[in-house]
Amino acid sequence: MSLSGSAVVPSPTGSTRLYAVLGHPVDQVMAPSLMNPLFAARQIDAVMVPIEVEPARLGSVIQGLKAIGNFDGLLVTVPHKFAVCGYADRLGETATIAGSANALRREADGSWSADNFDGAGFVAGLRKAGHTLEGAAACLVGAGGAGVSIAAALMLAGVGRLLINDVACDRLDRLVSRLATRWPGKVSAAPQAATPGLDFIINATPLGLRPHDPLPFEIANLSEGTIVADIIMKPAETRLLEEAQRRGLPTHPGIHMLTEQIELYRSFFRLQ
Amino acid sequence: MSLSGSAVVPSPTGSTRLYAVLGHPVDQVMAPSLMNPLFAARQIDAVMVPIEVEPARLGSVIQGLKAIGNFDGLLVTVPHKFAVCGYADRLGETATIAGSANALRREADGSWSADNFDGAGFVAGLRKAGHTLEGAAACLVGAGGAGVSIAAALMLAGVGRLLINDVACDRLDRLVSRLATRWPGKVSAAPQAATPGLDFIINATPLGLRPHDPLPFEIANLSEGTIVADIIMKPAETRLLEEAQRRGLPTHPGIHMLTEQIELYRSFFRLQ
Repeated sequence: MSLSGSAVVPSPTGSTRLYAVLGHPVDQVMAPSLMNPLFAARQIDAVMVPIEVEPARLGSVIQGLKAIGNFDGLLVTVPHKFAVCGYADRLGETATIAGSANALRREADGSWSADNFDGAGFVAGLRKAGHTLEGAAACLVGAGGAGVSIAAALMLAGVGRLLINDVACDRLDRLVSRLATRWPGKVSAAPQAATPGLDFIINATPLGLRPHDPLPFEIANLSEGTIVADIIMKPAETRLLEEAQRRGLPTHPGIHMLTEQIELYRSFFRLQ
Repeated sequence: MSLSGSAVVPSPTGSTRLYAVLGHPVDQVMAPSLMNPLFAARQIDAVMVPIEVEPARLGSVIQGLKAIGNFDGLLVTVPHKFAVCGYADRLGETATIAGSANALRREADGSWSADNFDGAGFVAGLRKAGHTLEGAAACLVGAGGAGVSIAAALMLAGVGRLLINDVACDRLDRLVSRLATRWPGKVSAAPQAATPGLDFIINATPLGLRPHDPLPFEIANLSEGTIVADIIMKPAETRLLEEAQRRGLPTHPGIHMLTEQIELYRSFFRLQ
Protein backbone atom coordinates (compact mmCIF):
# COMPACT_ATOMS: atom_id res chain seq x y z
CA MET A 1 0.00 0.00 0.00
CA SER A 2 2.96 2.30 0.48
CA LEU A 3 3.58 4.62 -2.42
CA SER A 4 6.49 6.32 -0.73
CA GLY A 5 9.59 6.47 -2.86
CA SER A 6 7.71 5.56 -6.03
CA ALA A 7 8.68 7.58 -9.10
CA VAL A 8 5.97 9.72 -10.68
CA VAL A 9 4.99 9.10 -14.28
CA PRO A 10 2.23 10.41 -16.59
CA SER A 11 -1.18 8.85 -15.88
CA PRO A 12 -2.21 6.21 -18.42
CA THR A 13 -4.82 7.55 -20.88
CA GLY A 14 -7.04 5.86 -23.46
CA SER A 15 -4.17 5.67 -25.97
CA THR A 16 -1.59 4.05 -23.66
CA ARG A 17 0.10 0.82 -24.86
CA LEU A 18 0.39 -2.04 -22.38
CA TYR A 19 3.19 -4.21 -21.04
CA ALA A 20 3.02 -6.61 -18.10
CA VAL A 21 5.27 -8.62 -15.82
CA LEU A 22 3.86 -12.01 -14.82
CA GLY A 23 4.74 -13.80 -11.58
CA HIS A 24 3.44 -15.84 -8.66
CA PRO A 25 3.89 -14.03 -6.38
CA VAL A 26 4.44 -10.73 -8.16
CA ASP A 27 4.67 -8.13 -5.33
CA GLN A 28 8.45 -8.32 -5.29
CA VAL A 29 9.03 -7.55 -8.98
CA MET A 30 11.00 -4.40 -9.70
CA ALA A 31 10.45 -4.19 -13.47
CA PRO A 32 7.45 -1.79 -13.29
CA SER A 33 9.42 0.59 -11.05
CA LEU A 34 12.25 0.62 -13.61
CA MET A 35 10.37 0.40 -16.93
CA ASN A 36 7.70 3.04 -16.22
CA PRO A 37 10.21 5.84 -15.54
CA LEU A 38 12.03 4.73 -18.72
CA PHE A 39 8.80 5.08 -20.72
CA ALA A 40 8.23 8.51 -19.17
CA ALA A 41 11.78 9.70 -19.82
CA ARG A 42 11.46 8.72 -23.49
CA GLN A 43 7.93 10.10 -23.83
CA ILE A 44 6.64 6.66 -24.77
CA ASP A 45 2.90 6.41 -24.04
CA ALA A 46 3.06 2.97 -22.38
CA VAL A 47 2.71 1.41 -18.94
CA MET A 48 4.04 -1.81 -17.39
CA VAL A 49 1.79 -3.43 -14.79
CA PRO A 50 2.31 -6.45 -12.51
CA ILE A 51 0.13 -9.52 -13.12
CA GLU A 52 -0.28 -12.13 -10.38
CA VAL A 53 -1.12 -15.49 -11.95
CA GLU A 54 -1.19 -19.00 -10.53
CA PRO A 55 0.49 -21.67 -12.67
CA ALA A 56 -2.87 -23.38 -13.40
CA ARG A 57 -4.24 -20.12 -14.86
CA LEU A 58 -1.22 -19.09 -16.92
CA GLY A 59 -2.75 -20.27 -20.21
CA SER A 60 -5.98 -18.30 -19.71
CA VAL A 61 -4.06 -15.15 -18.82
CA ILE A 62 -1.63 -15.34 -21.74
CA GLN A 63 -4.40 -16.11 -24.25
CA GLY A 64 -6.33 -13.15 -22.84
CA LEU A 65 -3.32 -10.82 -23.04
CA LYS A 66 -2.62 -11.86 -26.64
CA ALA A 67 -6.23 -10.97 -27.53
CA ILE A 68 -5.75 -7.36 -26.32
CA GLY A 69 -5.16 -5.01 -29.25
CA ASN A 70 -2.91 -2.55 -27.38
CA PHE A 71 -0.86 -5.18 -25.52
CA ASP A 72 2.69 -5.32 -26.87
CA GLY A 73 4.83 -7.45 -24.59
CA LEU A 74 5.45 -9.12 -21.29
CA LEU A 75 8.18 -10.01 -18.88
CA VAL A 76 8.02 -13.23 -16.91
CA THR A 77 9.32 -14.24 -13.51
CA VAL A 78 9.15 -17.24 -11.15
CA PRO A 79 7.57 -19.81 -11.61
CA HIS A 80 6.47 -19.20 -15.20
CA LYS A 81 9.77 -18.94 -17.14
CA PHE A 82 9.71 -22.51 -18.42
CA ALA A 83 5.97 -22.69 -19.16
CA VAL A 84 5.81 -19.47 -21.21
CA CYS A 85 8.05 -21.00 -23.88
CA GLY A 86 4.98 -23.01 -24.89
CA TYR A 87 3.09 -19.82 -25.71
CA ALA A 88 5.72 -18.33 -28.05
CA ASP A 89 5.76 -18.89 -31.80
CA ARG A 90 9.57 -18.68 -31.80
CA LEU A 91 12.43 -18.60 -29.28
CA GLY A 92 15.65 -16.59 -29.39
CA GLU A 93 19.11 -18.20 -28.98
CA THR A 94 19.38 -18.01 -25.19
CA ALA A 95 15.78 -19.13 -24.64
CA THR A 96 16.35 -22.07 -26.98
CA ILE A 97 19.49 -23.18 -25.13
CA ALA A 98 17.96 -22.53 -21.71
CA GLY A 99 14.45 -23.85 -22.43
CA SER A 100 13.26 -20.87 -20.44
CA ALA A 101 12.10 -17.35 -21.37
CA ASN A 102 11.58 -14.11 -19.47
CA ALA A 103 10.33 -11.78 -22.23
CA LEU A 104 7.74 -12.09 -25.00
CA ARG A 105 6.87 -9.52 -27.65
CA ARG A 106 4.18 -9.22 -30.30
CA GLU A 107 5.57 -9.08 -33.84
CA ALA A 108 4.09 -6.98 -36.65
CA ASP A 109 2.36 -10.09 -38.07
CA GLY A 110 0.70 -10.80 -34.71
CA SER A 111 2.94 -13.76 -33.81
CA TRP A 112 4.90 -13.86 -30.52
CA SER A 113 8.67 -14.16 -30.01
CA ALA A 114 10.34 -15.01 -26.71
CA ASP A 115 13.86 -14.81 -25.35
CA ASN A 116 15.62 -14.92 -22.02
CA PHE A 117 17.66 -11.90 -20.87
CA ASP A 118 18.44 -12.95 -17.30
CA GLY A 119 21.75 -14.43 -18.39
CA ALA A 120 22.71 -11.63 -20.78
CA GLY A 121 21.84 -9.06 -18.09
CA PHE A 122 23.89 -10.94 -15.50
CA VAL A 123 26.89 -11.22 -17.84
CA ALA A 124 26.63 -7.53 -18.78
CA GLY A 125 26.60 -6.67 -15.08
CA LEU A 126 29.77 -8.69 -14.39
CA ARG A 127 31.53 -7.07 -17.37
CA LYS A 128 30.48 -3.58 -16.31
CA ALA A 129 32.00 -4.33 -12.90
CA GLY A 130 35.30 -5.02 -14.70
CA HIS A 131 35.31 -8.82 -14.56
CA THR A 132 36.61 -11.03 -17.40
CA LEU A 133 34.62 -14.11 -18.31
CA GLU A 134 36.62 -15.52 -21.21
CA GLY A 135 38.31 -18.70 -20.05
CA ALA A 136 37.11 -18.32 -16.45
CA ALA A 137 36.12 -21.16 -14.11
CA ALA A 138 32.63 -20.63 -12.75
CA CYS A 139 30.18 -22.49 -10.55
CA LEU A 140 26.46 -21.84 -10.87
CA VAL A 141 24.20 -22.90 -8.02
CA GLY A 142 20.57 -23.28 -9.11
CA ALA A 143 19.31 -24.56 -12.47
CA GLY A 144 15.86 -22.90 -12.28
CA GLY A 145 14.31 -20.33 -14.64
CA ALA A 146 17.05 -17.75 -14.10
CA GLY A 147 19.89 -20.26 -13.62
CA VAL A 148 19.44 -21.93 -17.01
CA SER A 149 19.60 -18.54 -18.71
CA ILE A 150 22.73 -17.54 -16.77
CA ALA A 151 24.35 -20.88 -17.66
CA ALA A 152 23.65 -20.32 -21.35
CA ALA A 153 24.90 -16.71 -21.23
CA LEU A 154 28.08 -17.65 -19.35
CA MET A 155 28.92 -20.22 -22.03
CA LEU A 156 28.05 -17.80 -24.86
CA ALA A 157 30.36 -15.27 -23.11
CA GLY A 158 33.30 -17.69 -23.32
CA VAL A 159 33.56 -19.18 -19.82
CA GLY A 160 36.15 -21.97 -19.93
CA ARG A 161 34.69 -24.33 -17.34
CA LEU A 162 31.20 -24.29 -15.84
CA LEU A 163 30.16 -26.39 -12.86
CA ILE A 164 26.45 -26.50 -12.11
CA ASN A 165 24.91 -27.53 -8.80
CA ASP A 166 21.23 -28.08 -8.02
CA VAL A 167 19.31 -30.14 -5.50
CA ALA A 168 16.88 -31.22 -8.24
CA CYS A 169 18.87 -33.87 -10.15
CA ASP A 170 16.50 -34.10 -13.11
CA ARG A 171 16.62 -30.46 -14.14
CA LEU A 172 20.35 -30.32 -13.39
CA ASP A 173 21.04 -33.28 -15.68
CA ARG A 174 18.76 -31.83 -18.36
CA LEU A 175 20.63 -28.51 -18.36
CA VAL A 176 24.11 -30.05 -18.25
CA SER A 177 23.40 -32.42 -21.13
CA ARG A 178 21.84 -29.63 -23.19
CA LEU A 179 24.90 -27.39 -22.70
CA ALA A 180 27.38 -30.25 -23.12
CA THR A 181 26.01 -30.93 -26.60
CA ARG A 182 27.01 -27.46 -27.70
CA TRP A 183 30.12 -27.05 -25.51
CA PRO A 184 31.53 -30.58 -25.05
CA GLY A 185 33.94 -31.06 -22.14
CA LYS A 186 33.30 -27.64 -20.62
CA VAL A 187 30.16 -28.16 -18.56
CA SER A 188 29.59 -30.61 -15.72
CA ALA A 189 27.29 -31.29 -12.80
CA ALA A 190 28.97 -30.51 -9.47
CA PRO A 191 27.90 -32.41 -6.34
CA GLN A 192 29.83 -29.88 -4.23
CA ALA A 193 29.25 -26.25 -5.17
CA ALA A 194 32.00 -24.55 -3.23
CA THR A 195 35.27 -26.01 -4.46
CA PRO A 196 38.67 -24.31 -4.60
CA GLY A 197 40.00 -22.79 -7.81
CA LEU A 198 36.88 -20.93 -8.98
CA ASP A 199 36.90 -17.44 -10.47
CA PHE A 200 33.16 -17.01 -9.89
CA ILE A 201 30.45 -18.67 -7.83
CA ILE A 202 26.88 -17.57 -8.44
CA ASN A 203 23.73 -18.07 -6.40
CA ALA A 204 20.77 -18.51 -8.75
CA THR A 205 18.53 -20.18 -6.15
CA PRO A 206 15.80 -18.34 -4.21
CA LEU A 207 17.73 -18.92 -0.94
CA GLY A 208 18.31 -15.53 0.65
CA LEU A 209 14.93 -14.00 -0.24
CA ARG A 210 13.74 -14.73 3.30
CA PRO A 211 15.80 -13.64 6.33
CA HIS A 212 16.14 -17.13 7.86
CA ASP A 213 17.01 -19.02 4.67
CA PRO A 214 20.13 -21.19 4.91
CA LEU A 215 23.09 -20.12 2.74
CA PRO A 216 22.79 -21.55 -0.81
CA PHE A 217 26.35 -22.92 -0.49
CA GLU A 218 29.24 -22.98 2.00
CA ILE A 219 31.91 -20.37 1.50
CA ALA A 220 34.61 -21.84 3.75
CA ASN A 221 36.34 -23.77 0.95
CA LEU A 222 36.38 -21.01 -1.66
CA SER A 223 39.76 -19.80 -2.87
CA GLU A 224 40.91 -16.28 -2.17
CA GLY A 225 39.67 -13.97 -4.94
CA THR A 226 36.65 -16.04 -5.93
CA ILE A 227 33.91 -13.57 -6.80
CA VAL A 228 30.67 -14.40 -4.96
CA ALA A 229 27.64 -13.25 -6.98
CA ASP A 230 23.99 -13.30 -6.04
CA ILE A 231 20.97 -12.75 -8.29
CA ILE A 232 18.63 -11.91 -5.40
CA MET A 233 17.64 -8.23 -5.46
CA LYS A 234 15.59 -8.01 -2.28
CA PRO A 235 17.36 -7.77 0.11
CA ALA A 236 20.06 -5.90 -1.80
CA GLU A 237 22.71 -7.42 0.48
CA THR A 238 21.92 -11.07 1.14
CA ARG A 239 23.43 -12.96 4.05
CA LEU A 240 25.53 -14.82 1.47
CA LEU A 241 27.14 -11.58 0.31
CA GLU A 242 27.63 -10.38 3.89
CA GLU A 243 29.37 -13.60 4.91
CA ALA A 244 31.55 -13.53 1.79
CA GLN A 245 32.61 -9.97 2.54
CA ARG A 246 33.40 -10.99 6.12
CA ARG A 247 35.70 -13.65 4.66
CA GLY A 248 37.31 -11.00 2.45
CA LEU A 249 35.91 -12.30 -0.83
CA PRO A 250 34.80 -9.87 -3.61
CA THR A 251 31.02 -9.80 -4.11
CA HIS A 252 28.56 -8.88 -6.87
CA PRO A 253 24.93 -8.06 -5.88
CA GLY A 254 21.78 -9.05 -7.78
CA ILE A 255 20.58 -5.61 -8.81
CA HIS A 256 23.08 -5.37 -11.69
CA MET A 257 21.37 -8.26 -13.51
CA LEU A 258 18.12 -6.28 -13.60
CA THR A 259 19.51 -2.83 -14.35
CA GLU A 260 21.54 -4.23 -17.27
CA GLN A 261 18.46 -6.10 -18.50
CA ILE A 262 16.44 -2.89 -18.76
CA GLU A 263 18.51 -1.84 -21.76
CA LEU A 264 18.13 -5.33 -23.26
CA TYR A 265 14.35 -5.19 -22.77
CA ARG A 266 14.25 -1.75 -24.36
CA SER A 267 15.95 -3.12 -27.44
CA PHE A 268 13.84 -6.34 -27.49
CA PHE A 269 10.60 -4.34 -27.26
CA ARG A 270 11.92 -1.93 -29.94
CA LEU A 271 11.36 1.12 -27.74
CA GLN A 272 12.96 4.23 -29.21
CA MET B 1 1.72 9.68 -28.38
CA SER B 2 1.19 13.06 -26.81
CA LEU B 3 1.57 13.05 -23.07
CA SER B 4 1.02 16.77 -22.78
CA GLY B 5 -1.60 17.68 -20.24
CA SER B 6 -1.59 14.24 -18.67
CA ALA B 7 -1.66 14.22 -14.87
CA VAL B 8 1.30 12.64 -13.10
CA VAL B 9 0.74 9.69 -10.79
CA PRO B 10 3.01 7.25 -8.91
CA SER B 11 4.57 4.60 -11.14
CA PRO B 12 2.95 1.17 -10.80
CA THR B 13 5.10 -1.21 -8.73
CA GLY B 14 4.94 -4.96 -8.12
CA SER B 15 2.18 -4.56 -5.54
CA THR B 16 -0.17 -2.39 -7.65
CA ARG B 17 -3.80 -3.59 -8.07
CA LEU B 18 -5.30 -3.50 -11.56
CA TYR B 19 -8.41 -2.01 -13.15
CA ALA B 20 -9.15 -1.74 -16.88
CA VAL B 21 -11.53 -0.02 -19.26
CA LEU B 22 -12.53 -2.14 -22.26
CA GLY B 23 -13.55 -0.68 -25.61
CA HIS B 24 -13.26 -0.98 -29.39
CA PRO B 25 -11.84 1.50 -30.12
CA VAL B 26 -10.48 2.56 -26.75
CA ASP B 27 -8.26 5.60 -27.52
CA GLN B 28 -11.06 8.03 -26.73
CA VAL B 29 -11.85 6.77 -23.22
CA MET B 30 -11.34 9.29 -20.44
CA ALA B 31 -11.72 6.96 -17.46
CA PRO B 32 -7.95 6.30 -16.99
CA SER B 33 -7.25 10.06 -17.01
CA LEU B 34 -9.86 10.53 -14.25
CA MET B 35 -9.47 7.35 -12.17
CA ASN B 36 -5.66 7.31 -11.93
CA PRO B 37 -5.43 10.77 -10.34
CA LEU B 38 -8.24 9.67 -7.98
CA PHE B 39 -6.18 6.60 -6.96
CA ALA B 40 -3.14 8.84 -6.44
CA ALA B 41 -5.05 11.44 -4.41
CA ARG B 42 -6.36 8.71 -2.10
CA GLN B 43 -3.00 6.90 -1.91
CA ILE B 44 -4.58 3.76 -3.37
CA ASP B 45 -1.90 1.56 -4.97
CA ALA B 46 -3.88 0.83 -8.16
CA VAL B 47 -3.84 1.69 -11.85
CA MET B 48 -6.54 1.78 -14.55
CA VAL B 49 -5.38 0.90 -18.06
CA PRO B 50 -7.19 0.95 -21.43
CA ILE B 51 -7.82 -2.39 -23.15
CA GLU B 52 -8.59 -2.50 -26.87
CA VAL B 53 -10.59 -5.63 -27.67
CA GLU B 54 -12.52 -6.70 -30.75
CA PRO B 55 -15.99 -8.14 -30.11
CA ALA B 56 -14.90 -11.62 -31.27
CA ARG B 57 -12.13 -11.66 -28.65
CA LEU B 58 -14.08 -10.28 -25.71
CA GLY B 59 -14.58 -13.69 -24.10
CA SER B 60 -10.85 -14.55 -24.19
CA VAL B 61 -9.92 -11.19 -22.71
CA ILE B 62 -12.47 -11.28 -19.89
CA GLN B 63 -11.62 -14.88 -18.97
CA GLY B 64 -7.95 -13.87 -18.94
CA LEU B 65 -8.60 -10.79 -16.76
CA LYS B 66 -10.65 -12.84 -14.30
CA ALA B 67 -7.71 -15.26 -13.96
CA ILE B 68 -5.37 -12.44 -12.83
CA GLY B 69 -4.96 -12.46 -9.04
CA ASN B 70 -4.48 -8.69 -8.63
CA PHE B 71 -7.23 -7.67 -11.08
CA ASP B 72 -10.16 -6.10 -9.22
CA GLY B 73 -12.56 -4.54 -11.70
CA LEU B 74 -13.30 -3.17 -15.12
CA LEU B 75 -15.25 -0.48 -16.89
CA VAL B 76 -16.79 -1.17 -20.27
CA THR B 77 -17.56 1.05 -23.24
CA VAL B 78 -18.86 0.70 -26.83
CA PRO B 79 -19.53 -1.90 -28.24
CA HIS B 80 -19.21 -4.31 -25.28
CA LYS B 81 -21.84 -3.05 -22.81
CA PHE B 82 -24.47 -5.62 -23.78
CA ALA B 83 -22.11 -8.60 -24.18
CA VAL B 84 -20.37 -8.17 -20.81
CA CYS B 85 -23.61 -8.94 -18.97
CA GLY B 86 -23.01 -12.56 -20.01
CA TYR B 87 -19.75 -12.64 -18.04
CA ALA B 88 -21.20 -11.41 -14.72
CA ASP B 89 -22.50 -13.72 -12.02
CA ARG B 90 -25.08 -11.10 -10.98
CA LEU B 91 -26.46 -7.78 -12.28
CA GLY B 92 -27.45 -4.68 -10.32
CA GLU B 93 -30.87 -3.00 -10.71
CA THR B 94 -30.03 -0.64 -13.59
CA ALA B 95 -28.07 -3.29 -15.50
CA THR B 96 -30.98 -5.70 -15.11
CA ILE B 97 -33.50 -3.18 -16.45
CA ALA B 98 -31.16 -2.00 -19.20
CA GLY B 99 -29.72 -5.38 -20.19
CA SER B 100 -26.41 -3.54 -20.41
CA ALA B 101 -23.49 -3.01 -18.00
CA ASN B 102 -20.52 -0.66 -17.87
CA ALA B 103 -18.77 -1.81 -14.68
CA LEU B 104 -17.79 -5.20 -13.24
CA ARG B 105 -16.12 -5.92 -9.92
CA ARG B 106 -14.64 -9.00 -8.27
CA GLU B 107 -16.40 -9.95 -5.02
CA ALA B 108 -14.62 -11.40 -1.97
CA ASP B 109 -15.80 -14.92 -2.96
CA GLY B 110 -14.28 -14.54 -6.45
CA SER B 111 -17.60 -14.07 -8.25
CA TRP B 112 -18.27 -11.03 -10.48
CA SER B 113 -21.01 -8.41 -10.15
CA ALA B 114 -21.99 -5.91 -12.86
CA ASP B 115 -24.02 -2.74 -13.00
CA ASN B 116 -24.54 0.21 -15.32
CA PHE B 117 -23.75 3.72 -14.09
CA ASP B 118 -24.14 5.67 -17.34
CA GLY B 119 -27.73 6.49 -16.49
CA ALA B 120 -27.17 7.23 -12.81
CA GLY B 121 -24.22 9.46 -13.76
CA PHE B 122 -26.29 11.28 -16.36
CA VAL B 123 -29.18 11.81 -13.92
CA ALA B 124 -26.78 13.01 -11.20
CA GLY B 125 -25.31 15.49 -13.71
CA LEU B 126 -28.73 16.92 -14.58
CA ARG B 127 -29.63 17.25 -10.91
CA LYS B 128 -26.34 18.93 -10.07
CA ALA B 129 -27.10 21.44 -12.84
CA GLY B 130 -30.34 22.27 -10.99
CA HIS B 131 -32.82 20.41 -13.19
CA THR B 132 -35.87 18.58 -11.83
CA LEU B 133 -36.70 15.19 -13.30
CA GLU B 134 -39.77 14.18 -11.27
CA GLY B 135 -42.78 14.30 -13.56
CA ALA B 136 -40.81 15.69 -16.52
CA ALA B 137 -41.41 14.86 -20.20
CA ALA B 138 -38.24 13.58 -21.83
CA CYS B 139 -37.20 12.24 -25.20
CA LEU B 140 -34.19 9.94 -25.46
CA VAL B 141 -32.57 9.49 -28.87
CA GLY B 142 -30.50 6.31 -29.05
CA ALA B 143 -31.24 2.97 -27.40
CA GLY B 144 -27.65 1.65 -27.46
CA GLY B 145 -25.44 0.64 -24.54
CA ALA B 146 -25.56 4.08 -22.88
CA GLY B 147 -29.11 4.91 -23.97
CA VAL B 148 -30.70 1.89 -22.29
CA SER B 149 -29.00 2.81 -19.03
CA ILE B 150 -30.11 6.43 -19.27
CA ALA B 151 -33.68 5.32 -20.02
CA ALA B 152 -33.69 3.10 -16.93
CA ALA B 153 -32.18 5.83 -14.75
CA LEU B 154 -34.62 8.49 -16.00
CA MET B 155 -37.56 6.24 -15.08
CA LEU B 156 -36.01 5.35 -11.69
CA ALA B 157 -35.60 9.13 -11.14
CA GLY B 158 -39.35 9.71 -11.59
CA VAL B 159 -39.66 11.06 -15.15
CA GLY B 160 -43.38 11.28 -15.99
CA ARG B 161 -43.26 10.52 -19.70
CA LEU B 162 -40.37 9.06 -21.72
CA LEU B 163 -40.30 8.95 -25.52
CA ILE B 164 -37.53 6.87 -27.05
CA ASN B 165 -36.30 7.16 -30.63
CA ASP B 166 -33.83 4.90 -32.42
CA VAL B 167 -33.22 3.97 -36.04
CA ALA B 168 -32.89 0.30 -35.04
CA CYS B 169 -36.49 -0.79 -34.51
CA ASP B 170 -35.68 -4.11 -32.84
CA ARG B 171 -33.61 -2.74 -29.98
CA LEU B 172 -35.99 0.20 -29.61
CA ASP B 173 -38.99 -2.12 -29.24
CA ARG B 174 -37.06 -4.35 -26.85
CA LEU B 175 -36.20 -1.42 -24.57
CA VAL B 176 -39.68 0.14 -24.67
CA SER B 177 -41.41 -3.14 -23.85
CA ARG B 178 -38.98 -3.86 -21.04
CA LEU B 179 -39.54 -0.43 -19.46
CA ALA B 180 -43.31 -0.49 -20.11
CA THR B 181 -43.62 -3.67 -18.04
CA ARG B 182 -42.32 -1.85 -14.99
CA TRP B 183 -43.74 1.63 -15.76
CA PRO B 184 -46.95 0.98 -17.73
CA GLY B 185 -48.28 3.93 -19.75
CA LYS B 186 -45.22 6.10 -19.23
CA VAL B 187 -42.81 4.90 -21.93
CA SER B 188 -43.36 4.84 -25.68
CA ALA B 189 -41.45 4.61 -28.95
CA ALA B 190 -41.32 7.93 -30.78
CA PRO B 191 -41.03 7.96 -34.58
CA GLN B 192 -40.23 11.70 -34.41
CA ALA B 193 -37.67 12.66 -31.80
CA ALA B 194 -38.05 16.43 -31.75
CA THR B 195 -41.63 17.12 -30.75
CA PRO B 196 -42.96 20.17 -28.90
CA GLY B 197 -43.71 20.06 -25.17
CA LEU B 198 -40.54 18.32 -23.97
CA ASP B 199 -38.63 19.30 -20.84
CA PHE B 200 -35.55 17.36 -21.97
CA ILE B 201 -34.22 15.88 -25.18
CA ILE B 202 -31.09 13.74 -24.94
CA ASN B 203 -28.68 12.56 -27.60
CA ALA B 204 -27.41 9.07 -26.68
CA THR B 205 -26.29 8.19 -30.23
CA PRO B 206 -22.66 8.42 -31.43
CA LEU B 207 -23.63 11.22 -33.86
CA GLY B 208 -21.45 14.20 -33.12
CA LEU B 209 -18.25 12.28 -32.37
CA ARG B 210 -17.03 13.08 -35.89
CA PRO B 211 -17.04 16.66 -37.22
CA HIS B 212 -19.21 15.96 -40.28
CA ASP B 213 -21.84 13.78 -38.57
CA PRO B 214 -25.42 14.86 -39.21
CA LEU B 215 -27.35 16.12 -36.18
CA PRO B 216 -28.92 13.24 -34.22
CA PHE B 217 -32.30 15.05 -34.38
CA GLU B 218 -33.79 18.28 -35.71
CA ILE B 219 -34.09 21.10 -33.21
CA ALA B 220 -36.44 23.36 -35.17
CA ASN B 221 -39.63 21.96 -33.59
CA LEU B 222 -38.47 21.98 -29.99
CA SER B 223 -40.37 24.16 -27.54
CA GLU B 224 -38.73 27.12 -25.88
CA GLY B 225 -37.00 25.96 -22.68
CA THR B 226 -36.45 22.35 -23.77
CA ILE B 227 -33.07 21.33 -22.36
CA VAL B 228 -30.87 19.80 -25.06
CA ALA B 229 -28.44 17.28 -23.53
CA ASP B 230 -25.64 15.37 -25.20
CA ILE B 231 -23.65 12.42 -23.81
CA ILE B 232 -20.75 12.92 -26.22
CA MET B 233 -17.65 14.10 -24.37
CA LYS B 234 -15.25 14.65 -27.28
CA PRO B 235 -15.79 17.26 -28.62
CA ALA B 236 -16.94 18.93 -25.41
CA GLU B 237 -19.30 21.15 -27.44
CA THR B 238 -20.96 19.10 -30.18
CA ARG B 239 -22.59 20.73 -33.18
CA LEU B 240 -25.93 19.74 -31.66
CA LEU B 241 -25.22 21.82 -28.56
CA GLU B 242 -23.91 24.73 -30.63
CA GLU B 243 -27.02 24.78 -32.81
CA ALA B 244 -29.29 24.52 -29.76
CA GLN B 245 -27.52 27.47 -28.12
CA ARG B 246 -27.88 29.45 -31.34
CA ARG B 247 -31.63 28.81 -31.11
CA GLY B 248 -31.59 30.00 -27.50
CA LEU B 249 -32.21 26.59 -25.93
CA PRO B 250 -30.51 25.59 -22.66
CA THR B 251 -27.89 22.85 -23.12
CA HIS B 252 -26.19 20.20 -20.98
CA PRO B 253 -22.83 18.76 -22.18
CA GLY B 254 -21.69 15.13 -21.99
CA ILE B 255 -18.81 15.52 -19.56
CA HIS B 256 -21.11 15.69 -16.52
CA MET B 257 -22.25 12.10 -17.07
CA LEU B 258 -18.64 10.92 -16.68
CA THR B 259 -17.54 13.18 -13.85
CA GLU B 260 -20.61 12.19 -11.80
CA GLN B 261 -19.93 8.52 -12.59
CA ILE B 262 -16.44 8.69 -11.10
CA GLU B 263 -17.94 8.94 -7.62
CA LEU B 264 -20.34 6.08 -8.44
CA TYR B 265 -17.43 3.93 -9.65
CA ARG B 266 -15.46 4.77 -6.51
CA SER B 267 -18.32 3.48 -4.40
CA PHE B 268 -18.96 0.40 -6.64
CA PHE B 269 -15.26 -0.58 -6.48
CA ARG B 270 -15.28 0.05 -2.71
CA LEU B 271 -12.32 2.43 -2.91
CA GLN B 272 -11.78 4.28 0.36
